[in-house]
Amino acid sequence: MSTLPRITVWNEFLHEKFNPEIGKLYPGGMHQAIAQYLRKQGFAVQTATLEEPEHGLTDEVLANTDVLIWWGHMAHARVSDEVVNKVHKRIVEQGMGLIVLHSAHFSKIFVKLMGTTCNLKWREIGERERLWVVNPAHPIARGVADYIEIPHAEMYGEHFDIPQPDELVFISWFQGGEVFRSGCCFNRGRGKIFYFRPGHETYPIYYQAEVLHVIANAARWAAPSGGPAANFGQFPDPIEKVGVWEGQIEIQHPE
Amino acid sequence: MSTLPRITVWNEFLHEKFNPEIGKLYPGGMHQAIAQYLRKQGFAVQTATLEEPEHGLTDEVLANTDVLIWWGHMAHARVSDEVVNKVHKRIVEQGMGLIVLHSAHFSKIFVKLMGTTCNLKWREIGERERLWVVNPAHPIARGVADYIEIPHAEMYGEHFDIPQPDELVFISWFQGGEVFRSGCCFNRGRGKIFYFRPGHETYPIYYQAEVLHVIANAARWAAPSGGPAANFGQFPDPIEKVGVWEGQIEIQHPE
Amino acid sequence: MSTLPRITVWNEFLHEKFNPEIGKLYPGGMHQAIAQYLRKQGFAVQTATLEEPEHGLTDEVLANTDVLIWWGHMAHARVSDEVVNKVHKRIVEQGMGLIVLHSAHFSKIFVKLMGTTCNLKWREIGERERLWVVNPAHPIARGVADYIEIPHAEMYGEHFDIPQPDELVFISWFQGGEVFRSGCCFNRGRGKIFYFRPGHETYPIYYQAEVLHVIANAARWAAPSGGPAANFGQFPDPIEKVGVWEGQIEIQHPE
Amino acid sequence: MSTLPRITVWNEFLHEKFNPEIGKLYPGGMHQAIAQYLRKQGFAVQTATLEEPEHGLTDEVLANTDVLIWWGHMAHARVSDEVVNKVHKRIVEQGMGLIVLHSAHFSKIFVKLMGTTCNLKWREIGERERLWVVNPAHPIARGVADYIEIPHAEMYGEHFDIPQPDELVFISWFQGGEVFRSGCCFNRGRGKIFYFRPGHETYPIYYQAEVLHVIANAARWAAPSGGPAANFGQFPDPIEKVGVWEGQIEIQHPE
Repeated sequence: MSTLPRITVWNEFLHEKFNPEIGKLYPGGMHQAIAQYLRKQGFAVQTATLEEPEHGLTDEVLANTDVLIWWGHMAHARVSDEVVNKVHKRIVEQGMGLIVLHSAHFSKIFVKLMGTTCNLKWREIGERERLWVVNPAHPIARGVADYIEIPHAEMYGEHFDIPQPDELVFISWFQGGEVFRSGCCFNRGRGKIFYFRPGHETYPIYYQAEVLHVIANAARWAAPSGGPAANFGQFPDPIEKVGVWEGQIEIQHPE
Repeated sequence: MSTLPRITVWNEFLHEKFNPEIGKLYPGGMHQAIAQYLRKQGFAVQTATLEEPEHGLTDEVLANTDVLIWWGHMAHARVSDEVVNKVHKRIVEQGMGLIVLHSAHFSKIFVKLMGTTCNLKWREIGERERLWVVNPAHPIARGVADYIEIPHAEMYGEHFDIPQPDELVFISWFQGGEVFRSGCCFNRGRGKIFYFRPGHETYPIYYQAEVLHVIANAARWAAPSGGPAANFGQFPDPIEKVGVWEGQIEIQHPE
Repeated sequence: MSTLPRITVWNEFLHEKFNPEIGKLYPGGMHQAIAQYLRKQGFAVQTATLEEPEHGLTDEVLANTDVLIWWGHMAHARVSDEVVNKVHKRIVEQGMGLIVLHSAHFSKIFVKLMGTTCNLKWREIGERERLWVVNPAHPIARGVADYIEIPHAEMYGEHFDIPQPDELVFISWFQGGEVFRSGCCFNRGRGKIFYFRPGHETYPIYYQAEVLHVIANAARWAAPSGGPAANFGQFPDPIEKVGVWEGQIEIQHPE
Repeated sequence: MSTLPRITVWNEFLHEKFNPEIGKLYPGGMHQAIAQYLRKQGFAVQTATLEEPEHGLTDEVLANTDVLIWWGHMAHARVSDEVVNKVHKRIVEQGMGLIVLHSAHFSKIFVKLMGTTCNLKWREIGERERLWVVNPAHPIARGVADYIEIPHAEMYGEHFDIPQPDELVFISWFQGGEVFRSGCCFNRGRGKIFYFRPGHETYPIYYQAEVLHVIANAARWAAPSGGPAANFGQFPDPIEKVGVWEGQIEIQHPE
């Protein structure tokens, strides 16, 4: 039996349907390009898309997902709050991992998990990007060289309005003069989140071997760790013996 | 002219009105106990409460607040989303500081900023609490001894479901056997947030000198830092010269 | 073939030889108690001790060690700087993991890796300790309940003079009134370091199942991640084309 | 009385003496260029250099220094270990701040504080550098625009072998294709450390207003915070009453 996490790749899947050039680049949708690679690595992979019922993320699908990969761009607002709340709960309370790709920085689930605007600078002129490893000890950098070069990419530039990542793995250089924190790890509740910048509907980035390799590393890293479910709420009986307190309060007014 | 931040102390102010014992302990409300101390230290302090129009947090009040102190407990749900969103924006986009006290761990604004459940364990038997300094280099620990002892307190215990704090200043010991991360710093956007555990409506904790001293330290720390407002959005022209790309895509399918 | 990391357990191994009571508690030395447990979990385990030539840490032993476990107490100064420097290099440059146990907070290798004094408070009266999980998403907490209770322990108390851990997994509560950051993760170069507080020569703590379980979790976590060896030094040729600069410097004196 | 920290600017001061071109660029040495600016901002500033007795860092000078600025390049090895140890003690135990400039990444004091190799990539072709603010909430970014551009600089590239900074303020973009974590905050003991990349003996970078402005911000941030001196060592009497333990050990051998 495989010990690899079970993955669901979620894609908005609109650009590919409505823009013929993009449809030609990713015939089955970007989710299929990613899923195909991951299956070859031995992962069990499902896919889900926006226009399916419940966006394809039924209770059953979520219950059988260890790591969810999320791509969205033009229709973040169409994702129902109910589904977002279920995904959030599954991450924070049950430990499902989440990999947030590129323009999903503005997805409802990522913004909800971060607590900030997740805003950034952007430009689309097909410039060169180079992702440098800044944490070679991190499992997500396993098997990566000093850097990954992407020949043509949309630029995302700082300031990227996220909380300081718990671990920063990649920083991008852009030909036009900007930098960006491109590989960011966050722990939230029992779940692990990895934001990974590369990818845009008009570039063949999800066919690039190094990019797919990092996504597979991230899926292994983001798998539920098996740590304890926290016990919350009232615990009226102390573990240690505590004497009875009669509650005579004396107020010492400060100067 | 004072360079101290202008503070607004927000209090739910319900317990004090409806429970005579609590009303006797904090005659004007807990916000007045805190405000009075801060004014003695030279801060300009306003107060605001739940049942005022707009919860007392009008645009004008917010525009004149550098650091907002927040206490709530039984009526988090009654705080309007509109006000929460305005406070969030003022913190993340404009740099207002936020000090979150005790049971406000479940306030809408703190949960929204954290992205997690902010859940915890609790018990109310008037046991002893001791807050240990674990970061003596931090300005919030200025003038504090090795620890602060609170004779009678409600217990909050781990696991506390928050993101890992950017800086952890205090850890609490409880007589009944638990520990808690009691002084937690977070940066979110341009704003700084300090969660500080002590305080409960049935104890005179907001009269205790060491507790008030830490709140004053935190207000100084959380004041807007004057860093740049980030420029977000599209920047179509690169800073550096980038050659024109004709967009001939070659797909290299990975193995 | 096992994919588990190869472990070497290093022990000062003096108390057990010179104090009959301790010798009775840990007949083969504490390293044997730990090694025996790890072998039962399937790890390949070697041991090494202070009074062996090169302290048992020859080049060959180090080259075949993925994770080094370190216990020392009364003879830190007798560990040769040459061996410390080799261990440091193997961690930072080659990614060997290090698990630092209890009184090894003052070992030369830990102090060198931390850059601080690593000092703390202590007391030995056999009091109760309870280690609370504060990061349930962390692989080192896998299979641990809310807390681990140790019936009799030496107390270590804050302030513990270490850099803020990259990830904090456990906080200890002590019967006598103190707290302590008891499970601390650090990344240094390509290596991972876990400081774990429990254990003292006069208590049977290294026979306690939960403590041994955490050590095994930590060994899996600290195994080399396979990230890239960094390329350092001069790279005279830029990756991107840069025009020749003639070096005419104009000084703009600031006001 | 000024509340600004008292600064000592330390410079190796060899390049300026032995290379006429550099001597012409920085007639009194780089330390004088920096000191002159800081004095204009109201700081009390001393200077100290390698070839003075005790490298100019006598006990008296250190006792009257709140923030030490350090520049070194070709003669790190000539700095005496005794002085390094005194500076280390003054930072970690007494809270003096340290600002480490450019090639001082390899200084003994920085390497000792970091615990890693502090190695990096470099190239000197006078290329353009742009430092982007990635933490606009940080006091060190006060009054800085989106980025600082340095027309001609030596390149430093990732991987930079330092522990993950407690706070990352700047990331550099280089014309030749690299990135670098250029403004890094670390807390070590009671002291604060800021590594700031810009500056090289052959460029007029320490005359550039934005660079000097950041150094002044950093000096204010790194000033001693006034937090407690930690009490270390044995505390034989527990704060809380603990029953006498007779020390009957029962070993539960784990399975």
